[in-house]
Amino acid sequence: MTSTKAGRLYTIGMGPGDPELLTLKAARILGAVPAIAYFAKVGQRGHARTLADGHLRPETVELRFDYPVTVELSHNDERYVEAMAGCYDAAAEAIAARLSAGQDVALLCEGDPFFYGSSMYLFDRLRERFAQEVVPGIPGMVGCWAAAQLPMTHGDDVLAVLPGTMEEAALEAALQGAQAAVIMKLGRNLPKVRRVLERLGRQGRTVYVERGTMAAARIVPLAELGEAPAPYFSMLLIPGRQERR
Amino acid sequence: MTSTKAGRLYTIGMGPGDPELLTLKAARILGAVPAIAYFAKVGQRGHARTLADGHLRPETVELRFDYPVTVELSHNDERYVEAMAGCYDAAAEAIAARLSAGQDVALLCEGDPFFYGSSMYLFDRLRERFAQEVVPGIPGMVGCWAAAQLPMTHGDDVLAVLPGTMEEAALEAALQGAQAAVIMKLGRNLPKVRRVLERLGRQGRTVYVERGTMAAARIVPLAELGEAPAPYFSMLLIPGRQERR
Repeated sequence: MTSTKAGRLYTIGMGPGDPELLTLKAARILGAVPAIAYFAKVGQRGHARTLADGHLRPETVELRFDYPVTVELSHNDERYVEAMAGCYDAAAEAIAARLSAGQDVALLCEGDPFFYGSSMYLFDRLRERFAQEVVPGIPGMVGCWAAAQLPMTHGDDVLAVLPGTMEEAALEAALQGAQAAVIMKLGRNLPKVRRVLERLGRQGRTVYVERGTMAAARIVPLAELGEAPAPYFSMLLIPGRQERR
Repeated sequence: MTSTKAGRLYTIGMGPGDPELLTLKAARILGAVPAIAYFAKVGQRGHARTLADGHLRPETVELRFDYPVTVELSHNDERYVEAMAGCYDAAAEAIAARLSAGQDVALLCEGDPFFYGSSMYLFDRLRERFAQEVVPGIPGMVGCWAAAQLPMTHGDDVLAVLPGTMEEAALEAALQGAQAAVIMKLGRNLPKVRRVLERLGRQGRTVYVERGTMAAARIVPLAELGEAPAPYFSMLLIPGRQERR
């Protein structure tokens, strides 16, 4: 009679985009596991996968999961929610099959896994059945404020991380209570966000960042940004108090 | 006639405490620079310096700066502010002397340099005189939520990072506007913070973390934490929405 010891799932933060901002721990695990798993958009290689280049062995098995095509659906649309749930269910089962067979699997995740990462949905689905370890990564926003050379929070500053999708009044209230802020998911929300910052007199110190730690980074003061819509994965950085000690 | 090209200051995020959570970039720079600089408390080696073990060369010069002893002073006390400013001025000049002589210097910083890091005061003092590069690191709170296996923010969650030193009413208002929160600088502020969380009915899902990514980590639900005062460098993690997709 033989019994197989189940494998372990490593959920790995791959950092903000610069391949050198991977951690030593992530690099070690990527070089050791028999299988990796990752999500990517149809037809694209995927940022997370690209960041693993140079760390895998030739025989490493790759489980690639395509995100369902949902571009025309709002995130609140029931069809979007169902399509994503189906995608996560299928991915969780494919990973579970490997783990049950005794293989360790590394799930790659852009930025940090537990900071707006889709890997959380797999973590939740598998947490009661398998041993898991989460390797933190540098979140995108942290890579962005380093690239922008923008000291963000001092002393007792409050930092608010806000989605640009918020209602205008709620966004304004949140910004009033925070010395420092990061506003994500800009896209077509940019004009609304700009209106709020102007009303609060905070547009002057705000910095716009696109692809923060990539070669094609674009970092400009918000005041110098034109009226063109921003890509969804751009963000605004509003640094906290700058009093010099 | 000879002229010396000035050196470059690398401000390096050393991550949340686990030596393996250093980035590949940080490790490369630590092994290449002729000099490192770091702050430490009198009589202690310093976490940032400890995390550099194994990456320096035998001939690497070390500039160690002792923090002034200010334990009995409030951070708003004019004497505290002056003592810290004097410490930063002296450190900046010691680093400037090396840079002017053409040497690169790596300034070590726990967590991420621009997220509540004291290295920002040196960055500001030297930014107009020397070329600088900031290498981001994993902030302490990101290491803590990975260690606690606590998915923090989903979808359109707002995350608030709050100091426990806030006034009770302001703290309550900030928490009401945020699905997810991190409360830092607990210390003797813990009873006040607890009161607020209880009033908001949010104590149940809150997790207390002490020395998050160290061997001696302590991670317990807030409800199971006794009444003893918390150390200053502990934090509370309040995860955002957990709706499963």
